[in-house]
Amino acid sequence: MLIARVIGSAVSTVKADILVGRKLLIVCETSVSDEMTGKPFVAIDAVGAGHGELVLISQGSAGRFTPMTVDAPVDAVIMGILDSLEVDGTTTFRKS
Amino acid sequence: MLIARVIGSAVSTVKADILVGRKLLIVCETSVSDEMTGKPFVAIDAVGAGHGELVLISQGSAGRFTPMTVDAPVDAVIMGILDSLEVDGTTTFRKS
Amino acid sequence: MLIARVIGSAVSTVKADILVGRKLLIVCETSVSDEMTGKPFVAIDAVGAGHGELVLISQGSAGRFTPMTVDAPVDAVIMGILDSLEVDGTTTFRKS
Amino acid sequence: MLIARVIGSAVSTVKADILVGRKLLIVCETSVSDEMTGKPFVAIDAVGAGHGELVLISQGSAGRFTPMTVDAPVDAVIMGILDSLEVDGTTTFRKS
Amino acid sequence: MLIARVIGSAVSTVKADILVGRKLLIVCETSVSDEMTGKPFVAIDAVGAGHGELVLISQGSAGRFTPMTVDAPVDAVIMGILDSLEVDGTTTFRKS
Repeated sequence: MLIARVIGSAVSTVKADILVGRKLLIVCETSVSDEMTGKPFVAIDAVGAGHGELVLISQGSAGRFTPMTVDAPVDAVIMGILDSLEVDGTTTFRKS
Repeated sequence: MLIARVIGSAVSTVKADILVGRKLLIVCETSVSDEMTGKPFVAIDAVGAGHGELVLISQGSAGRFTPMTVDAPVDAVIMGILDSLEVDGTTTFRKS
Repeated sequence: MLIARVIGSAVSTVKADILVGRKLLIVCETSVSDEMTGKPFVAIDAVGAGHGELVLISQGSAGRFTPMTVDAPVDAVIMGILDSLEVDGTTTFRKS
Repeated sequence: MLIARVIGSAVSTVKADILVGRKLLIVCETSVSDEMTGKPFVAIDAVGAGHGELVLISQGSAGRFTPMTVDAPVDAVIMGILDSLEVDGTTTFRKS
Repeated sequence: MLIARVIGSAVSTVKADILVGRKLLIVCETSVSDEMTGKPFVAIDAVGAGHGELVLISQGSAGRFTPMTVDAPVDAVIMGILDSLEVDGTTTFRKS
């Protein structure tokens, strides 16, 4: 799963029916030290993530394996909110 | 999902049977500020997107989870038309 | 789907049983103006594409959704032959 | 499958229900000589891998084909712990 | 499918049960002229490929569509051994 930060949101009124009422968040991959490293893209939120939070994103078919995205045409889902990251014994991120 | 712009269309008379009558649109990934950043590719349109519109594209198996692409050999589908994008409190795109 | 050109063919006598008798074509991704931009790879032909033709390629699980590749261990299939491409009102490719 | 090293761990209390109790490890792709070459990401551990070990990672839908990840929204799983690697007759890695 | 060369092998005693007894080969993507171009990774062998042979590799879910990898958590399988490659009328590779 990618480590990413929620940096914004998207509005789409014309979209696949199954997605009506679902939050579309703009996310950007980050390093383990919370520096943005990738190109922003859009993910469906399955866990109630908020702006600025560090999250875990599953890509591909995994995006259809949450209760709110079953059989939805989505390829990226936020499936966890990160509390902390530790690399080689050092805490590189802790949710404030 | 990728943020992309519809920049053209493709015509293919010899193609998988299930795709007869489906629109093949040429799209290009864009940044959140609507600058083209990627290499153009072809997506099936599931929502009635028009030329020049900013859209959301699902890639991979997700492309088969719209009513018009069930069991079709496609790997990219336009599943939403974007009205606006907001990043860190600033509107970076609004449909005109 | 990728826009690609058929540039050659591969021969493999020892292969997954389900692929016996199937054409293995070497293809290369191209731009909308038919310039080769990618690294050649091998795709199964589902539509009778010929050498030099511009084609549409679906990657991933989509490759198993044609009559001749059902349940085959393939990840790339030629699912359409391109007649023409149009970008921003200009025809960038037309089959000769 | 990717060759990767376990370099850390992630904590997420708010996550997809099916993942409660599962270890989230931070991994980094490595060369056959155990030099880190990629960007760290998070994988589910299906085999009891420990910090510092070299492992095999399956990406995509393969991540749902272990007993502990069936139908889970995950896209990367550690499915083997590496004992040794041999390239062109030379052992390039041996677990100490 | 990728064109790749078998350059080595991996040993893993702790791994997903379904893979016990399966060969784990180290492969590297090559050009049509058999020059290595990619980063080595590990693939399951479904056709009896040997060291040094040029092979076809299917990635993603396709890896589960051979008799020996059904429902296995793998994302890359060798599904063919290459005898020859021809590009624009020239044979660029022939198995010796």
